[in-house]
Amino acid sequence: MTDVKIYMQDLGRRARLASRAMARANTATKNAALLKMADLIDAQTEHLKLENAKDVANASAKGMDSAFIDRLTLSDKAIASMVAGLRQVAELPDPIGQMMNFKPLPSGINVGQMRVPLGVIGIIYESRPNVTIDAAALCIKSGNATILRGGSEALHSNQALASIVQSGLLSAGLPADAVQVVNTTDRAAVGELITMTEYVDVIVPRGGKSLIERLMNDARVPMIKHLDGICHSYIDVDADVSKAIKVCDNAKTQRYAPCNTMETLLVHAQVAAEVLPTLCKIYQEKAVELRVDSATRATLESVGFKDLATATEADWCTEYLAPILSIKTVQTVDEAIEHINHYGSAHTDAIITENYSTAQKFLREVDSSSVMVNASTRFADGFEYGLGAEIGISNDKLHARGPVGLDGLTSLKYIVLGDGHIRT
Amino acid sequence: MTDVKIYMQDLGRRARLASRAMARANTATKNAALLKMADLIDAQTEHLKLENAKDVANASAKGMDSAFIDRLTLSDKAIASMVAGLRQVAELPDPIGQMMNFKPLPSGINVGQMRVPLGVIGIIYESRPNVTIDAAALCIKSGNATILRGGSEALHSNQALASIVQSGLLSAGLPADAVQVVNTTDRAAVGELITMTEYVDVIVPRGGKSLIERLMNDARVPMIKHLDGICHSYIDVDADVSKAIKVCDNAKTQRYAPCNTMETLLVHAQVAAEVLPTLCKIYQEKAVELRVDSATRATLESVGFKDLATATEADWCTEYLAPILSIKTVQTVDEAIEHINHYGSAHTDAIITENYSTAQKFLREVDSSSVMVNASTRFADGFEYGLGAEIGISNDKLHARGPVGLDGLTSLKYIVLGDGHIRT
Repeated sequence: MTDVKIYMQDLGRRARLASRAMARANTATKNAALLKMADLIDAQTEHLKLENAKDVANASAKGMDSAFIDRLTLSDKAIASMVAGLRQVAELPDPIGQMMNFKPLPSGINVGQMRVPLGVIGIIYESRPNVTIDAAALCIKSGNATILRGGSEALHSNQALASIVQSGLLSAGLPADAVQVVNTTDRAAVGELITMTEYVDVIVPRGGKSLIERLMNDARVPMIKHLDGICHSYIDVDADVSKAIKVCDNAKTQRYAPCNTMETLLVHAQVAAEVLPTLCKIYQEKAVELRVDSATRATLESVGFKDLATATEADWCTEYLAPILSIKTVQTVDEAIEHINHYGSAHTDAIITENYSTAQKFLREVDSSSVMVNASTRFADGFEYGLGAEIGISNDKLHARGPVGLDGLTSLKYIVLGDGHIRT
Repeated sequence: MTDVKIYMQDLGRRARLASRAMARANTATKNAALLKMADLIDAQTEHLKLENAKDVANASAKGMDSAFIDRLTLSDKAIASMVAGLRQVAELPDPIGQMMNFKPLPSGINVGQMRVPLGVIGIIYESRPNVTIDAAALCIKSGNATILRGGSEALHSNQALASIVQSGLLSAGLPADAVQVVNTTDRAAVGELITMTEYVDVIVPRGGKSLIERLMNDARVPMIKHLDGICHSYIDVDADVSKAIKVCDNAKTQRYAPCNTMETLLVHAQVAAEVLPTLCKIYQEKAVELRVDSATRATLESVGFKDLATATEADWCTEYLAPILSIKTVQTVDEAIEHINHYGSAHTDAIITENYSTAQKFLREVDSSSVMVNASTRFADGFEYGLGAEIGISNDKLHARGPVGLDGLTSLKYIVLGDGHIRT
């Protein structure tokens, strides 16, 4: 075995052992650990900033761009936000041990389910040290052990944070190994983490598409992940035009970078002339580049729009994450649904309509993790959905789908209560 | 591409397309297809038996054993049971389209979930033609398309059944491609099926441990599976001895081959002398071989038991599927839990106790897909749990855990109902 393999297997063994203690830990103990971590971060702000400064200096010397440095930097605001996050997670209801769905059966046994932790969660993320605290907090609250592998440029910051997390765990009587931060920048460590099926129950990658694509090729441990958010809004023939304009403006322009931002607008041909000129004027005023099909071009040019780009096949498949919007005019709701199911990424798609049956059809037939009526796709978020937390968004179908909160880090086992019952 | 790869990719493409129509199909349509299949099987009994006779003749010529031939043979009883099964599945509630968990949120949106099919399910099984109908029925009812790959010795039988299934689908206006049976015995077909992640959403292997181990090495598509059922019963210090004897007799001897049969009995040292002699006498009368640790041996030999086998380390890890039972005496409930979590297979484990706190501890800390109090492990079954059906049992933690019914072949998507709501 290579050194990295030996090292990672050891982390795995310790995590598996710690996961048993975490599964048994009661709510008060887990909360005490989280609150202690918040206090320690608060008290060690200067130390954290010193460690972080080493990472920032190295990254700057390597010529990383300013967006990268921003994400890497533990500013006072970023530190305060970590502290607040820990206290918020402590206040969330504990999902573990919740019992539900009990029913008495003809044999006399009573069968229900109990929510339990998944076990060991591997989290792989980029050079954003705040994710170390965020991920650790969610795993602790949900009774899991975790192995964290952050971007190598954040190594000093993450080690300093890990030491605080482990102090918090120990002060509450929980095993320090419940949260381990991989302390090597060797990329082989990631390869081990995503294949140690005996020690790791699920991988949650938090990062861009390229990270996730890389992991997908090699992972043997199941992942909770989404690749892209190619989100659509469809303005139906029966849309309320003022709602359509308000919602589709918000879905595209409230923020450009999130995965739940609209990337393609579909419009029913019979309302295109009524809705598109006003809406596209708003987009252009906000400097959103429009890429349109020929029918949409005809509608817009007839009222004086000029120099519109043509949407190509590639546009329908692209998550711009930028002030660019592709627009297509469709003849029917079925055409809209077909376009979404074909070109979309099963993330979040919305219809704007006042027609009950059309709304029901869209809700039922669009095969995405979130489907909306008369609402902005930007709502697809664990906090907006009332989950109280978000470890990520999944557009897979097994296990958790859509925004994943604490429950997504748990499983349900069956509980059978008998009184000496036997099977006959 | 090899011929097999081209063939399987074509099945995959067709299944994906058919899955869209299946997801849209209403309950009446799906039930009509199931009932038509039942009628057709009833009407074509003689034809089915002729096709099946070819398989049986080939298998006999190959020297397959009588248990194999039994499972392969479509007797009148087996055919009647397939017909009854189809009619039962038609009567089950349709899980698809069920909406739940709606709650209004501070932003004004209303967020809930809708149950939807997984999409395309690959089912891999041995030479038991009845599984073709059973699996097809569950996939149809849950709105999924399926690709079935049965054992090669059942090829004629499965093709005859597939043709009936497809007639049933067409007669109800559903696509014949919703249920496709792989018509090649080339084993490379399995390799394709379990790696076509673009066309197959989940694999359900139905068969023995060796089949599943083989698939696990190569599968890229997620699986709903369990490997073994090393099930335990633990007789606590506070057990009601008469319940303990009744339940532990049943757990071992009601049937020997099922995965939910007890393989290891754990007994608290303080009740061993009271419970073991009576219970072990029952086992010996039923010709169950006992393999015991030294403390259990001492207890039993002191009352005249002789020639007891010694349980080795391997016994604690073995699913006998036979009239053999390993017995260990433990000092505490913690020792029992640790033994189960270490040696068990996370399938089904039971405690016999009258002590409330001990029962709660066992329920919470035993990390298995079914955990029971005062009931026989033999109850771990989709029908006994009131699921109305069972596609298999999962001892994994992601997605479905324990007996998997129709709901296990579905997923929940988020539904957001707004009225022109935007995110601010």
